Amino acid sequence: MSLTPEQLFEIENQRSQTAPTARTVSEGMESHLYTAYPVLDHGFVRVIDYMGDDAAICQAARVSYGKGTKSVQNDEGLIRYLMRHWHSTPFEMCEIKLHVKLPVFVARQWIRHRTANVNEYSARYSILDREFYIPAPDQVAAQSAINNQGRGDMLQGEEAARVLEILKADSTRAYDSYENMISQEGQQGLARELARMNLPANIYTQWYWKVDLHNLFHFLRLRADSHAQYEIRVYAEEMCKIVADWVPAAYQAFADYRMGGAQLSAMGVDCIRRMLAGEAVTQDSSGMSAREWREFEALIKPET
Amino acid sequence: MSLTPEQLFEIENQRSQTAPTARTVSEGMESHLYTAYPVLDHGFVRVIDYMGDDAAICQAARVSYGKGTKSVQNDEGLIRYLMRHWHSTPFEMCEIKLHVKLPVFVARQWIRHRTANVNEYSARYSILDREFYIPAPDQVAAQSAINNQGRGDMLQGEEAARVLEILKADSTRAYDSYENMISQEGQQGLARELARMNLPANIYTQWYWKVDLHNLFHFLRLRADSHAQYEIRVYAEEMCKIVADWVPAAYQAFADYRMGGAQLSAMGVDCIRRMLAGEAVTQDSSGMSAREWREFEALIKPET
Amino acid sequence: MSLTPEQLFEIENQRSQTAPTARTVSEGMESHLYTAYPVLDHGFVRVIDYMGDDAAICQAARVSYGKGTKSVQNDEGLIRYLMRHWHSTPFEMCEIKLHVKLPVFVARQWIRHRTANVNEYSARYSILDREFYIPAPDQVAAQSAINNQGRGDMLQGEEAARVLEILKADSTRAYDSYENMISQEGQQGLARELARMNLPANIYTQWYWKVDLHNLFHFLRLRADSHAQYEIRVYAEEMCKIVADWVPAAYQAFADYRMGGAQLSAMGVDCIRRMLAGEAVTQDSSGMSAREWREFEALIKPET
Amino acid sequence: MSLTPEQLFEIENQRSQTAPTARTVSEGMESHLYTAYPVLDHGFVRVIDYMGDDAAICQAARVSYGKGTKSVQNDEGLIRYLMRHWHSTPFEMCEIKLHVKLPVFVARQWIRHRTANVNEYSARYSILDREFYIPAPDQVAAQSAINNQGRGDMLQGEEAARVLEILKADSTRAYDSYENMISQEGQQGLARELARMNLPANIYTQWYWKVDLHNLFHFLRLRADSHAQYEIRVYAEEMCKIVADWVPAAYQAFADYRMGGAQLSAMGVDCIRRMLAGEAVTQDSSGMSAREWREFEALIKPET
Repeated sequence: MSLTPEQLFEIENQRSQTAPTARTVSEGMESHLYTAYPVLDHGFVRVIDYMGDDAAICQAARVSYGKGTKSVQNDEGLIRYLMRHWHSTPFEMCEIKLHVKLPVFVARQWIRHRTANVNEYSARYSILDREFYIPAPDQVAAQSAINNQGRGDMLQGEEAARVLEILKADSTRAYDSYENMISQEGQQGLARELARMNLPANIYTQWYWKVDLHNLFHFLRLRADSHAQYEIRVYAEEMCKIVADWVPAAYQAFADYRMGGAQLSAMGVDCIRRMLAGEAVTQDSSGMSAREWREFEALIKPET
Repeated sequence: MSLTPEQLFEIENQRSQTAPTARTVSEGMESHLYTAYPVLDHGFVRVIDYMGDDAAICQAARVSYGKGTKSVQNDEGLIRYLMRHWHSTPFEMCEIKLHVKLPVFVARQWIRHRTANVNEYSARYSILDREFYIPAPDQVAAQSAINNQGRGDMLQGEEAARVLEILKADSTRAYDSYENMISQEGQQGLARELARMNLPANIYTQWYWKVDLHNLFHFLRLRADSHAQYEIRVYAEEMCKIVADWVPAAYQAFADYRMGGAQLSAMGVDCIRRMLAGEAVTQDSSGMSAREWREFEALIKPET
Repeated sequence: MSLTPEQLFEIENQRSQTAPTARTVSEGMESHLYTAYPVLDHGFVRVIDYMGDDAAICQAARVSYGKGTKSVQNDEGLIRYLMRHWHSTPFEMCEIKLHVKLPVFVARQWIRHRTANVNEYSARYSILDREFYIPAPDQVAAQSAINNQGRGDMLQGEEAARVLEILKADSTRAYDSYENMISQEGQQGLARELARMNLPANIYTQWYWKVDLHNLFHFLRLRADSHAQYEIRVYAEEMCKIVADWVPAAYQAFADYRMGGAQLSAMGVDCIRRMLAGEAVTQDSSGMSAREWREFEALIKPET
Repeated sequence: MSLTPEQLFEIENQRSQTAPTARTVSEGMESHLYTAYPVLDHGFVRVIDYMGDDAAICQAARVSYGKGTKSVQNDEGLIRYLMRHWHSTPFEMCEIKLHVKLPVFVARQWIRHRTANVNEYSARYSILDREFYIPAPDQVAAQSAINNQGRGDMLQGEEAARVLEILKADSTRAYDSYENMISQEGQQGLARELARMNLPANIYTQWYWKVDLHNLFHFLRLRADSHAQYEIRVYAEEMCKIVADWVPAAYQAFADYRMGGAQLSAMGVDCIRRMLAGEAVTQDSSGMSAREWREFEALIKPET
């Protein structure tokens, strides 16, 4: 992460200024406000604003006149009930606004989550910085042999080094060309909206991203999952920590019923019933495909 | 409006408790928080929470590290530019959460605005109160003779009185039956999810409604418009006052470029050019239908 | 269901007229087009139009130049994989447009599914018909004693009869008043947009409703579920039959992985692993609440 | 555009196969189905499927049992009324599915329109083709001197040639490196999801994009506008031609009331009234900023 002294000053400045509000305040979240948490080599996530807390979820579910909370225990029970039974609308009553700096190829995955508000730094209007994502050496992975859409083992030393060399050299050259084309020294200078097309997908962009808690949980379930691409997963994991401090009860329910849970198929339910009744079920007698059976076996075998 | 002493106490309680926050605070909005502003005979609108202010719109548009504001004048200029050129995403960075009590037939129009979050009081789960909208005598209007979808002159005294009599009597009877059917005194008691079907559309319901500023402006443009049904327009007008205090610059831009402005057709643009060049344009030479020409004439004639 | 001869003629007329198209045609769906399938006492569901079929899901998933299908078996495998791993976007590539007639209180639940397009019959513009939902005698249920949001046993004979009597009498009276108020015989006649407020929630309305297959599956999972209110569930069940003929492979995957499946919590996964390893797990040692443990036990016990 | 013989064969094949359907058929649209219309140097737009036509808009607006059309003239009048008065839901009842090949930097603008369904070719899963957008010589423009977000005059010969040289050379090098890194000849081969980050934003991607007519019109109003970036505008313009054949009446209403029309501010309305009453209004007396006054003057001055 590479913030300028001026940027750090602005962040510190905002953190230190408080004003009284009659709104719901989440103490856990106040401590995160504005701080830029580093992700990848130049990226970050920081909270710009938020609305609501655990109590606000209950307040909306109860359509209350007051704070709408009863005992903490009672509220937790309600939140867990809502999560377990897919009552999603009360979670939509909390909102978060983030400032994120991220490589363009990560941004392209991220934006597929449509139920959110976005303002991205405009490369038509402004000049992008010379900042590119170069993987850490322990993230230079080979194509997976078993999953077309994923990575496998780490590349061996020399090949990994060559890859890093290529990425660095090509980024440098692409940015040199970019600067060269838009320069107005001794020439007219190419329009920014055209010049940007020369920049590779590992250049960093940034945006303000605002989303409600229900849709954020949906994002986190998919992107903090072990099957998500590493480069977006690290953002999701950083966000999980923040959300856990913002709405602790809702986050725990999310961890228990979504992240840590599993979806069983009709065949899976049937197999478990039969296995618990003592039957020795095999793939052949399970009604599942080979691939699905592998996933099922992984689910039910004891953690080691 | 008919709040119980307990409800009023809860509201006062929330208004009086403040805590420090490092978030953006809109002074104009803090003064509105929680207060129930009466609308119609038993309805209200009250602000439960908000996110952002005028500066937050600029901050997002500039993807800033700090507050993102420059001079107030500079910010106002940016906001007006964004509104004029339909750059809607920065306005989506502000959010408001309302608690609204409203007749069911108004709720049915309101809910058609899909880009919002809603938690409605559940008549499957709870028992509705005996509160019905009965129009004020000066709102008992006849069907419009020229607009199939609207109201015309006020009904004459006797007919108006009869209408009010009917509405009151039928509401009373419907609610008596409702109570009668769900009662568990000496009988099992009908399920609430069934009994509610006997209640007419002028019964009051309530909900929490959360929306971003861009979509709120869209709602207000359609529902604070003079063609909107009176019973939803009064809610929109009350909300306009609140928004004007929350984000004064954005609201003024909205008033100037949306509410107070007009959409010209290609034919309208052409006619104005010809008229300003001295030509006496008539409907025949305008390329407009009779109805469109009437609307156009109303637009360009001096206000009286 | 009460269609006029003219309406039946129009429907027959549309069913009998075919024209050649180069678009994807689903034979199973063509046979359903336009037919009004009765639901409840006066309601119906009928398909007005559709886009896509099973092959279109694969075609989009593969971003193909041609039909994009390989063998039927291969396509089925892909569709099941997409469903199992929550790849929802290919299912969004199919679309259906329905004409639905339904009681207002059902419409109010239905409309909460926001990701759909709707045109409802306007009671501001038009006069509603005298058609009210009166439950069949075997659907007049008592409030549930264990679930605040549901119905329990059927009401005993006399109480049930009284309820039906009330619903019929109040509907009749409300509609008489409605007609009386809007009549222009010897009076001005109340505006329709006002008169409609006297009509109870069991009056029928109708709308065109258009939705993509992914969001339709989401609707069906919640509304064809045994916990959904009976009066909306019967619509969902009728739609399930239609969808099964339209996209048989996708519907089977939906049945296997969504409708017939189950969501396990982290505690549920843990308990199953321990039980399969021979441990006698109880609620106390499960980490679940009493209510959650009941739901878990129901899931794993053999079907009877 | 560079389709392989196999792709052209698949397209021809689909165009030539028709089957009878009882659905609404738009003759104008059938003739466009599947054909790839070239855009830019390697891109295209082609229609994969559609739902509805002009009559379907009226049918939904009227919630009809039959086709819902009356006379063609009557339908046209209704469509124009709906467009003029922002009744958007009937237009949502038509749907179109497109296959688009486009440079990544164009895709990034396009995806900001959230109310649409998308399946993009996956560079995690598949290998991208060596196809890059290189502007035609008459599109190599300088940065605008007056509009920060736009292009100005064309670059002079030598500078333009140098720009094209750079874009070609850097694309070639980036793709060579990409191939080099993923190659499994004599090495493990970098994961595709990582290697893609080296590719610049002028590489072509492709997707299936499905949208309803209302949201398509919104897209076209912004992207076929003269202020849109040229590289997305040419896609929008190609789509306008297709839509004009699909729903001629709706497209004409769109052209008259949206594309060819103008939004007046409150100050603009006031100025026009005063000018038509004979007053000589200047910027000073207009209540407008200098920039807004320039835009206003451009609107009302006769076309030349």
